[in-house]
Amino acid sequence: MGDRETASDTIDDIWSEYYHRGLDYDAIKALLDNFYNEDMHYESGRILGSMYTVPPSVVREAFFKFYQANLGNPGLYPGTRKMERKVVEFLMGLTHGKDNYYGRVVSGGTEANIIAIWAAREMGYKKIYTTEDVHFSVIKAAHLLRMPVEYVPMKEYVMDPDALNETLVDDSIVVATAGTTPLGYVDPIDKIGEVCKDYRCYLHVDAAFGGFVLPFLKKKINFGFEVPEVKSITIDPHKMGMAPYPAGGIVSRENIFSSIAVDAPYLIEGYSDTLLGTRQSGSVAASYAAILYFGAEGYRKIVENCMENTYYLANRAEEEGFEILTRPLLNIVNIIVDNPNRVKLALLNMGWAVSTNPKYSSIRIVVMPHVKKGVIEEFLKDMKKIDTHFL
Amino acid sequence: MGDRETASDTIDDIWSEYYHRGLDYDAIKALLDNFYNEDMHYESGRILGSMYTVPPSVVREAFFKFYQANLGNPGLYPGTRKMERKVVEFLMGLTHGKDNYYGRVVSGGTEANIIAIWAAREMGYKKIYTTEDVHFSVIKAAHLLRMPVEYVPMKEYVMDPDALNETLVDDSIVVATAGTTPLGYVDPIDKIGEVCKDYRCYLHVDAAFGGFVLPFLKKKINFGFEVPEVKSITIDPHKMGMAPYPAGGIVSRENIFSSIAVDAPYLIEGYSDTLLGTRQSGSVAASYAAILYFGAEGYRKIVENCMENTYYLANRAEEEGFEILTRPLLNIVNIIVDNPNRVKLALLNMGWAVSTNPKYSSIRIVVMPHVKKGVIEEFLKDMKKIDTHFL
Repeated sequence: MGDRETASDTIDDIWSEYYHRGLDYDAIKALLDNFYNEDMHYESGRILGSMYTVPPSVVREAFFKFYQANLGNPGLYPGTRKMERKVVEFLMGLTHGKDNYYGRVVSGGTEANIIAIWAAREMGYKKIYTTEDVHFSVIKAAHLLRMPVEYVPMKEYVMDPDALNETLVDDSIVVATAGTTPLGYVDPIDKIGEVCKDYRCYLHVDAAFGGFVLPFLKKKINFGFEVPEVKSITIDPHKMGMAPYPAGGIVSRENIFSSIAVDAPYLIEGYSDTLLGTRQSGSVAASYAAILYFGAEGYRKIVENCMENTYYLANRAEEEGFEILTRPLLNIVNIIVDNPNRVKLALLNMGWAVSTNPKYSSIRIVVMPHVKKGVIEEFLKDMKKIDTHFL
Repeated sequence: MGDRETASDTIDDIWSEYYHRGLDYDAIKALLDNFYNEDMHYESGRILGSMYTVPPSVVREAFFKFYQANLGNPGLYPGTRKMERKVVEFLMGLTHGKDNYYGRVVSGGTEANIIAIWAAREMGYKKIYTTEDVHFSVIKAAHLLRMPVEYVPMKEYVMDPDALNETLVDDSIVVATAGTTPLGYVDPIDKIGEVCKDYRCYLHVDAAFGGFVLPFLKKKINFGFEVPEVKSITIDPHKMGMAPYPAGGIVSRENIFSSIAVDAPYLIEGYSDTLLGTRQSGSVAASYAAILYFGAEGYRKIVENCMENTYYLANRAEEEGFEILTRPLLNIVNIIVDNPNRVKLALLNMGWAVSTNPKYSSIRIVVMPHVKKGVIEEFLKDMKKIDTHFL
């Protein structure tokens, strides 16, 4: 975890290197090109472990056009503010919001989850119930907000509502996940809502990934405000919404933002009611452009296509002799291996980025739109070169 | 603070509006243009109240080139990770870091301040001492982290170190500011460090704005690691560093990031040690490009120019019969008015965005590079049209 540089350069050397006015345009570009070539890129199709994909060009252009907008000071940006309302409206459509119009485009799922849990704490909720498969941002929020976490036992890879019922107490937050990070599974939000009904309980749904997938599956799975106990939902345009970073989303049944607002008299609106101050809001315009470009029907086609490739990957992997951990529900596939970390590094050496689930002894592939059948075949060919049972 | 829409549209209407695959490229662009025209823009020169300015084109291009990079998962971005180290090196140069190489480019000063105070809390520091002129993000951090804040009395617009000495106790965080938001003044960091020496104390300096100004003033003012008690510093490339949002900076004498790290087994590095998860890192490349483009000498020229225009504004405002609150130290000028909010709105109607200091009954102008002498003259002409004593 250390990042202390071991270079022999002293700060004085560095300072004198940088002191004199620097490089011209071409020299800077050449340096940037070198660093660019060291990075991995979604355009290659070889990032298989992330919940992001390359946005279409109209979306990218919207981002670039508005890259200086900052809804941290919305008084300067009435146009961008309106686009944020439009994006929130669409998120309300995805989550079966009715008269609920509270929401923000924020920096990502982490900020969204922190805002929800922070607001709930300010409303007097004291303890978090969730599962071991919750996203790490909820654990981060618990540390930050100094709230205890109790892990509810799981059953068939999701929260067991009976187990929740046995342990839940009043004044608690329940964080359920619609599209778990490791498996893409969905906690039984309906049944969890039933349990919550008997307690003073704040039910938050982390649908950062699943929120742009579940509404478009053939099988209807409730995860949103149609479950009466659900109070807020994380749902990120920069995952399956095809928007660039930073575009997380948080929507709520009531105004949770006022619970966390602080005075900021120098701003035109006079207060700040998200976690961050400065908000890069090119992503608001980009999210809006994506919604206009795809529409719900366009997203449905993306999901249909990703699910087809997901089943394709699962079947082809089995045909090639690999073991799949669970039947995919969303567009995530886990392949069981003896040593996930070593397999991950072996794949990285071949130019593939996958993520791992140490708990399940698997590597995880998120079948985003750039993970097409041709990519899958190339990947499986390379996988077979690795001795996954001995690595 | 409510943002519930009053439109008669129900969610069902909205949903059906968005359902069918949407608009083509040109239609989307036309909509974006309309919203763009409603926003204010730095290019106009008329945003006078914000600590941001238009970056040069090579910096903008660097941002666009790397807009998909995400140091929330640095294993995918070894090139961008190296640029972040380079930016941190430069920040160390500005803050007189010696062998201290810990730092991150984060989303802004708010995240930077929260990280420092959160890390300090994890190290056992319990209470925050600061002044009323501290940035609101510190108050936000205190709410979030549930830490008490004691306001130290001020003397001549900065923290009074004698008053601090009378009230400070062991296990405390002192947040001093180098470039206060309202006035651009600098708490006496040297003397505050002397006071801290006798206590178990975490001294954090918020130099979000001043960090790229103070090193280039003729008068030398200590605010960095040359003061032995200073443990961490917020210093933002996206303010006077000429980088686009989101580019805050946090540097520290020791590794404060490990105190706040949480496990994230699915990421290539396996942990997350900033506040956010996803990190828009085009701004890392942009900050690096800005540093290469200007170099310290380039920043010195920018500061020289801004300070010249600052004195010009202060003198010309007085010549025109306005009262200046304090002699400017950094590039911030406050003009006393009877009703700052009304004056702000009157100016907004004339297309000028200023910020206000209700506490000091003033409007505040941040003399960023786009606030040139011609802009100042136009602004003063419009100011004279407003009856600032009766509005």
